[in-house]
Amino acid sequence: MKQDTYDRMKKFFSPRHIAVVGATEKNQWFRNLAKYARKIGFEGGLYPVNPSAREVCGIAAYPSVESLPEGLIDFAVIMVKSALVLQTMEKLRNRGVRDILLITSGYAEMGHEGSLKQEELRQYCLEHDILLMGPNCLGFLNMRDRAATFTGGSVEGELTPGAVALIGQSGATSEIIATKLLKKSLGISLFAATGNEAVLTTEDCLEYLIRDPGTRVIAGFIEGFRDIPRVKRIAAEALERAVPLVFIKVGRSAKGVQAARSHTGAMAGNDGVMSGFFRQCGIIRVNTIEELVETAGIFARCPLPRGNRLGICTFSGGLCGLYADLCAACGIELPGLSEKTVAALKGLLPDFAQPDNPLDVTGSGFMGGLEAIVKALLDDESIDMVAPVTFAPPDDSEPLYKIFNDTTFPLARSSEKPVIALAFREVNDYARRYYHDEGMYHVEHAEDSFKAISHFMRYARHRRAFLEDLKR
Amino acid sequence: MKQDTYDRMKKFFSPRHIAVVGATEKNQWFRNLAKYARKIGFEGGLYPVNPSAREVCGIAAYPSVESLPEGLIDFAVIMVKSALVLQTMEKLRNRGVRDILLITSGYAEMGHEGSLKQEELRQYCLEHDILLMGPNCLGFLNMRDRAATFTGGSVEGELTPGAVALIGQSGATSEIIATKLLKKSLGISLFAATGNEAVLTTEDCLEYLIRDPGTRVIAGFIEGFRDIPRVKRIAAEALERAVPLVFIKVGRSAKGVQAARSHTGAMAGNDGVMSGFFRQCGIIRVNTIEELVETAGIFARCPLPRGNRLGICTFSGGLCGLYADLCAACGIELPGLSEKTVAALKGLLPDFAQPDNPLDVTGSGFMGGLEAIVKALLDDESIDMVAPVTFAPPDDSEPLYKIFNDTTFPLARSSEKPVIALAFREVNDYARRYYHDEGMYHVEHAEDSFKAISHFMRYARHRRAFLEDLKR
Repeated sequence: MKQDTYDRMKKFFSPRHIAVVGATEKNQWFRNLAKYARKIGFEGGLYPVNPSAREVCGIAAYPSVESLPEGLIDFAVIMVKSALVLQTMEKLRNRGVRDILLITSGYAEMGHEGSLKQEELRQYCLEHDILLMGPNCLGFLNMRDRAATFTGGSVEGELTPGAVALIGQSGATSEIIATKLLKKSLGISLFAATGNEAVLTTEDCLEYLIRDPGTRVIAGFIEGFRDIPRVKRIAAEALERAVPLVFIKVGRSAKGVQAARSHTGAMAGNDGVMSGFFRQCGIIRVNTIEELVETAGIFARCPLPRGNRLGICTFSGGLCGLYADLCAACGIELPGLSEKTVAALKGLLPDFAQPDNPLDVTGSGFMGGLEAIVKALLDDESIDMVAPVTFAPPDDSEPLYKIFNDTTFPLARSSEKPVIALAFREVNDYARRYYHDEGMYHVEHAEDSFKAISHFMRYARHRRAFLEDLKR
Repeated sequence: MKQDTYDRMKKFFSPRHIAVVGATEKNQWFRNLAKYARKIGFEGGLYPVNPSAREVCGIAAYPSVESLPEGLIDFAVIMVKSALVLQTMEKLRNRGVRDILLITSGYAEMGHEGSLKQEELRQYCLEHDILLMGPNCLGFLNMRDRAATFTGGSVEGELTPGAVALIGQSGATSEIIATKLLKKSLGISLFAATGNEAVLTTEDCLEYLIRDPGTRVIAGFIEGFRDIPRVKRIAAEALERAVPLVFIKVGRSAKGVQAARSHTGAMAGNDGVMSGFFRQCGIIRVNTIEELVETAGIFARCPLPRGNRLGICTFSGGLCGLYADLCAACGIELPGLSEKTVAALKGLLPDFAQPDNPLDVTGSGFMGGLEAIVKALLDDESIDMVAPVTFAPPDDSEPLYKIFNDTTFPLARSSEKPVIALAFREVNDYARRYYHDEGMYHVEHAEDSFKAISHFMRYARHRRAFLEDLKR
């Protein structure tokens, strides 16, 4: 991506004066847009355009595009009916607006006729150098730069900026993913729901985001790509830049392919080929929203591991068994402990405890805190990553939980090896925020997280091999 | 199970006057026990026995077993150190107490010497007709009859009575499961953490619970069985009584086997053989705590389906694709819709919507409510079970959510086919309670729930075949 293309996209995603053509009280779109602009702390201006209203949702309206303040508007959201779209774009072009978000539906998702309309739209944009997101999409939330053009209604939670970018081709599904990222207290850098992608595609967004200094990992909900060779080039560059790409790609089943096709008109392609392609490129493919969120989360919070050998310690024999089974199912190695580590642990644990991996520190071994135990595991050369039990504090009332965690969290922050927190007790929003503030990735749903750990380890391995290949 | 054995167990699990020998302020056990007794609404008496305290945790204490009120005590919890256990049991026997919970650890979980001690204990109990739970266990919560002898500290949430029984051989893990059941707003009939099972075994509890009128489904966390032929007999009887057994059995991996063995001394056995045995018996094996909770939940809330063909309707094309892929992965069939259904849906949905399964009703199709659409799916003879989208209400402030759901919930309650609610929006405790009060099983983590649905369908099929075999 050339610098000027990057700059153009950066400007696209950080508008300051946004005209919204077709804003009405009745339609939820503008109401949502104004709500998210407020929530995100947008400091620019919103300029609803509506021929028959003096204000929309309490914001002063303009009767026409022509009546908008001269030379101010740098972005337009269009939500008029599809028959009026092209003439609206022409008017906006006359006012010098070349960054456009088109919410309106009725294009390629509607079959042949819609596809022709979409192609006409695309040609118009190319001809006039218009950058257009949509049609049939929700827009974006740029949490880092506090700009919102988002017309969906279901992103819940505080709009916290963070290191995870999210690209979604399906609006509602992407809203669910964004909500779950925020709920897990993983901040978001940029969330874009790209819809039919007549001009601006997922590929464009990816290429931009792997260069974005605020983004450490990119999550995507993909129904189909437009340009496979380009995805391959982007993936290679992303690997080099250590920005993992984690995607849900629907269409694992025949029914799934069918659903994707009738939804955004994307070609889902042969799924086995797609999986092989992802593997080859180092793109992480996940199957569920929760697995996507957890995988993004672990990349956002932890340094890459050197291998796939995990050390676990907890205080329940039952959990040791469960974790061991999960690791085996996910391809995570639980190495035996080195003699040195066993000797160290024997000095730390009660006589009846058996130093092993997973390590059951037992109730009494646990009472003294886990600092020395976790340190022994981190010092073990056969272990690449450590997961100790921690307490999820339900609220501020019981400082003991935090005091206990303070025996291990500093080790996590100072270690080169990733350390993740197994959360004991139910994890609520308070606890999620606490882990976030402590900079810790925490496990609250073991299966989702252990899948994430296995992606994390596999990615690290793939990247090492890739970098070695580059050197040759 | 003979009637008198059943009666004895029923009495065991419903004590009214509980002596607690070895109760101290310092130890958390009695504090926890008293806390849960209060929370559960226990109306009997607690009688801590402690030679050097006049009261423990604010409850009047007795200096010795001998000083306990004559003829009143019907249950004793022992938490003295293991060297004093047998003489304490002898004293209790002299007071006529034959139902005992032994919390103390230091038995079979401690290797050979501990196993000998446990065998001695067992012999003593058999000789004197003492029913003993433990050692090395946490006790039980009988939510239906409001009796608690529970010494663990980590069961969170309101102790709601309900249709799910829970048996756990691992204390801490079982506490997590119980908490998640309660959090999901699935009530519990009886929760027992059985520990080393010197006398009272998981098998005993199962045989009792399949006869318990308050229990519709039994969840278990199993490290190993004591008597496989007996489990087989119990499973057959459970099938006949339509009380599904849903178990996590650790030991899918070599490391898992090892963890189970060193934990409660259970023999984990050959895992492949165990899986085959479960399948043959119609016991449902699940792999994670969440899958266990969801599977128990769907059985607790829904009538059994007639087959494994699911109809899904939602308003997001992206979700349609995700659900379709999940169904394919779990072996859930998504049949095409019958001509009659397609015709009916064409009359109900906008022109551009394509009647299919999963069904994307689209935004505008959705605005009118789903009543007629769900009805059309329920009427389709190729569909055995329906999953429509519903709104999870975040609180009481927005009645629209509930009004929308009211278009489908009544159909769910009056249909012979199971109907489950796909929850749109994040599900919080308020929403969980709402679905509970509405009698609906809801899906908030699609993968866990779709695995549960597939168990549900497979169980129904297995049971039909079993009953037909019985008739021959």
